[in-house]
Amino acid sequence: MMEAKTYPEFSSRYPLLLTTFMKRPLGLYPDDIGIVYRNDGGEYFRFTWRQWYERTCQLAHALKELGIKPGKPGEPGDRVATMALNHHRHLELCYAPTCIGAVAHPINMRLSLDHMVHTITHSGDKVIFVDDLILPLVEMIYDKIKSTVKMFVFMSDRPGKPQTKIEPLYEYEELIKNQPKEFDWPYLSEDTPAVLYYTTGTTGLPKGITFNHRQLYLQSVHLIAGLQMTPRLPDDPKDPVINIPLVNIPLFHIHAWGAPWYYVFTCCKIVFPSRFSPESFCELVEREKVTSTAVVPTMLAMLLEYPDFKKYDLSSLTNIVAGGAALPFGLKAKAEKAFPGLTAGSGYGMSETAAGVLSSTIKRYMVDWSKEALDQVRVKTGLPSMGIEAQVIGEDGKPVPHDNQTMGEIVLRGHWIMEQYFNDPEKTAAAWRDGWFHTGDAAKVDTDGYTIIADRITDVIRSGAEMVPTVLLENLTANHDSVLEATFVGIPDEKWGERPMALIKLVPGADAKEEDIWKFLEEEGIAKGKITRWMMPDFIGFYDDIPKTSVGKYDKIAIRKRLDEFLQKAKKMTG
Amino acid sequence: MMEAKTYPEFSSRYPLLLTTFMKRPLGLYPDDIGIVYRNDGGEYFRFTWRQWYERTCQLAHALKELGIKPGKPGEPGDRVATMALNHHRHLELCYAPTCIGAVAHPINMRLSLDHMVHTITHSGDKVIFVDDLILPLVEMIYDKIKSTVKMFVFMSDRPGKPQTKIEPLYEYEELIKNQPKEFDWPYLSEDTPAVLYYTTGTTGLPKGITFNHRQLYLQSVHLIAGLQMTPRLPDDPKDPVINIPLVNIPLFHIHAWGAPWYYVFTCCKIVFPSRFSPESFCELVEREKVTSTAVVPTMLAMLLEYPDFKKYDLSSLTNIVAGGAALPFGLKAKAEKAFPGLTAGSGYGMSETAAGVLSSTIKRYMVDWSKEALDQVRVKTGLPSMGIEAQVIGEDGKPVPHDNQTMGEIVLRGHWIMEQYFNDPEKTAAAWRDGWFHTGDAAKVDTDGYTIIADRITDVIRSGAEMVPTVLLENLTANHDSVLEATFVGIPDEKWGERPMALIKLVPGADAKEEDIWKFLEEEGIAKGKITRWMMPDFIGFYDDIPKTSVGKYDKIAIRKRLDEFLQKAKKMTG
Repeated sequence: MMEAKTYPEFSSRYPLLLTTFMKRPLGLYPDDIGIVYRNDGGEYFRFTWRQWYERTCQLAHALKELGIKPGKPGEPGDRVATMALNHHRHLELCYAPTCIGAVAHPINMRLSLDHMVHTITHSGDKVIFVDDLILPLVEMIYDKIKSTVKMFVFMSDRPGKPQTKIEPLYEYEELIKNQPKEFDWPYLSEDTPAVLYYTTGTTGLPKGITFNHRQLYLQSVHLIAGLQMTPRLPDDPKDPVINIPLVNIPLFHIHAWGAPWYYVFTCCKIVFPSRFSPESFCELVEREKVTSTAVVPTMLAMLLEYPDFKKYDLSSLTNIVAGGAALPFGLKAKAEKAFPGLTAGSGYGMSETAAGVLSSTIKRYMVDWSKEALDQVRVKTGLPSMGIEAQVIGEDGKPVPHDNQTMGEIVLRGHWIMEQYFNDPEKTAAAWRDGWFHTGDAAKVDTDGYTIIADRITDVIRSGAEMVPTVLLENLTANHDSVLEATFVGIPDEKWGERPMALIKLVPGADAKEEDIWKFLEEEGIAKGKITRWMMPDFIGFYDDIPKTSVGKYDKIAIRKRLDEFLQKAKKMTG
Repeated sequence: MMEAKTYPEFSSRYPLLLTTFMKRPLGLYPDDIGIVYRNDGGEYFRFTWRQWYERTCQLAHALKELGIKPGKPGEPGDRVATMALNHHRHLELCYAPTCIGAVAHPINMRLSLDHMVHTITHSGDKVIFVDDLILPLVEMIYDKIKSTVKMFVFMSDRPGKPQTKIEPLYEYEELIKNQPKEFDWPYLSEDTPAVLYYTTGTTGLPKGITFNHRQLYLQSVHLIAGLQMTPRLPDDPKDPVINIPLVNIPLFHIHAWGAPWYYVFTCCKIVFPSRFSPESFCELVEREKVTSTAVVPTMLAMLLEYPDFKKYDLSSLTNIVAGGAALPFGLKAKAEKAFPGLTAGSGYGMSETAAGVLSSTIKRYMVDWSKEALDQVRVKTGLPSMGIEAQVIGEDGKPVPHDNQTMGEIVLRGHWIMEQYFNDPEKTAAAWRDGWFHTGDAAKVDTDGYTIIADRITDVIRSGAEMVPTVLLENLTANHDSVLEATFVGIPDEKWGERPMALIKLVPGADAKEEDIWKFLEEEGIAKGKITRWMMPDFIGFYDDIPKTSVGKYDKIAIRKRLDEFLQKAKKMTG
């Protein structure tokens, strides 16, 4: 790739590469601890940035020896897959493959076995790096993937290799230990695909999605800049002197929403818990003086229910972002009491956007609004991030008026909207129409310019000629003190086509009745002009367990499949 | 440019354009005041972002009607020049030309007339937009530029056109007033040149330098992100809730170091003072609640000497960056007392880098260092910005060791190092060698990785086989309480080739003698191991006025030309 190293390419077009991120902490903080990893056994491992960089160089040499080949602009190189939890090796596996021009594919281990096999064979993974704890899972699907995957690499904090039918099976530390500790990283084209993720497949088989170096680079630098530009509230806690993040979100979920990229570029001390547990969370925050973290609502609920929660000093933690799924109001209130630094904003993103593209940041003129008014803003889907164009368009293809009423589809373009559905030009062309990526999500826009999501267009309840805004109903219902979770689906109706039904999970110990919910919706919804009477559910049911997808969203397909079963336990409401 | 609007270009390569910056405040804050302009007569003009955007659209239509043509990647379009102070029209002239694909050329009006004429004819400016106050200057050079410049546009806060020989002369407000208020901005190639600046020509004729959209975009987004990543000190003032910047640096100086780009993208209320004066500075800070500003040291000195300074409430101003030239220690101490929010860091940049590429931000492990220790860090040239690679290389082309001693040349590459010297492939090729831009600045690197500049390689004093680090000597001398300014030049010496001479401007009223300076350098320099005896100046002279360039740097060429005159007033030191 020597041609890119000379004038004039560098002068006008220095490439946007993840390599720049990888090298920055080495240049600034070579001898500082960069990565802390606590394994499930409670053992700690610490690496300076130089040690981590040298290990990543060694891994790159090993990948070359294993025959891993780079790609070209728009043409992915060999896929290097991982079935791994959050640790230093997984971070090495974010950079070594991508910075030699190959593709990192973190396999989502929360998919069904069939879907997991599909992602591996469809991706054509050449090698899979597997954690010791996950090897049994690989053994279960081995026969279905062995003709695709050419080799496996075993990763463990203990030396030695296991007894297994999987082969060839290398051992990670053995593979890298004699390799050189420097690597002549190529100046790739920034358009070289870097990562491949799969959707969770709620509407069929999981779809593969690629992002190139340029896109991931621009996402990180825009998101970091966006933090700087977000208006502060007068009583916001001061930014910490030094940011120390704890990465709870699995790296196999869109690379923990981009954490490996922006945390390395910003030279943070990165704390990896292997996987989330209330115990490791509390211990790591206290010991490592963690200042920030991102959680999904379920993690927050688990923390608040953890009996030893109050025994730890969690005062360093001044910034928690809750994302991934809507944060129920009851949980939000409880969490805000426990964590003064909680930022319970909402946001919007999907696999196709490598996480965040809209977020409910406040506007400059809102800084002296009341907490109640701001809370209403923070539950909106949000404003486009810097570097993202977002519109809600009607069926005529034109933007809907910002009237807080007219529904349309969210369309996007910008620096980090997916490059392509991998090996699927048809689906790619279907999603990219008229220069916009079509999300399939229905929304309206309010008079302040905030997009407010209603539902997946395919999940929308169509009653008469109207779309029932299920997300609005869900949020409203979740405001009831006794409601922990609430979702709405459409049930077939002769007259209206579809009518709404509410599926509710109550707070443990709560004794609300279906009529209480109905009355609450009348008082808080209809009386206050938030919903109209025809949106009221025909059925309300209470359940211990509402089906969710692997990323914690309500699984409407699963609910519809078991609709009869759910209906039997629901109560017909007559108003 | 329709081809860029459809799949697949947008999916993997959404262009990096200044157009994105221009449109962001329109999308988020259309009805907020975006620009405040106070003219020299004390009149105020205010524009909402929508008004400013609509005026910019109208200007773009007018430019098209005037026949302004766009460029192509690497090939500049027509040059649209300005001879103007800081106001809303000048900001419109940053965006309308660039976003239609042409080139904005802000003419540096502090150059000599000859050099100014050179920049206009060398650039081939097709049109010049001229402030009313500056028209007499244009009349002086009109005969020399009239065959190049096809038309002029007169800008004034008063209606009407002046009597003048300049023609054709349009009037700005007349030109735009009947134009449509929307414009179908093209999705240009991001490699289209956007701006053209000229160097100050300290070493010959000013050289033209172009930057394309991609470079300016990436500079802004990296610099904004860099702010977010800078470690905070425990006693740093909290970031303001909302940033309101006052733009003192003239837009004709590298577009005020990038202010039009990042302040528009961040949707700040931008405050323009026409030009800096202590009175307008104080009035604007008080009235507009300005929170941040950048100044050159001379402005700071003028402010502190302004008799009415203490009559104003300047408490909103929590962030002042001093740049452009070294901030003398005496001035720094006085200024820190007057402005608690002063950030008297140093930085490094040049026309060729569109301002900042290195800055003296502190490192994470320094947050609990003493103020004295941190002050020593803050006067260093600094660390590379995110997105910039910097090295100091020796004559063998290899990086010098980080030993705080070995000298070499600063070389750079990264996202916003100049595209080309305009119409000068030879000088371009001379500066871009081996994939690095050669700055011509001599420096060393300390053990913390901070680059410390010594001098222009061409200005370096060579005594015996050694280079005398003049900037070190200058900083050391400026620490003396009586010294306001100090510079060192080499004077011919039969034995050593060159020997150092100190040119000093004393603080008004100070009565230091040459021997006092000598003794100070011995005690603070030699005794403390900062310099060695052979670096001591052979001559020390006191002067009322040390020659400086138009951007406030010591003008070594002018000093050398008048060396005999300076030597006559200097004292020969014998130690």
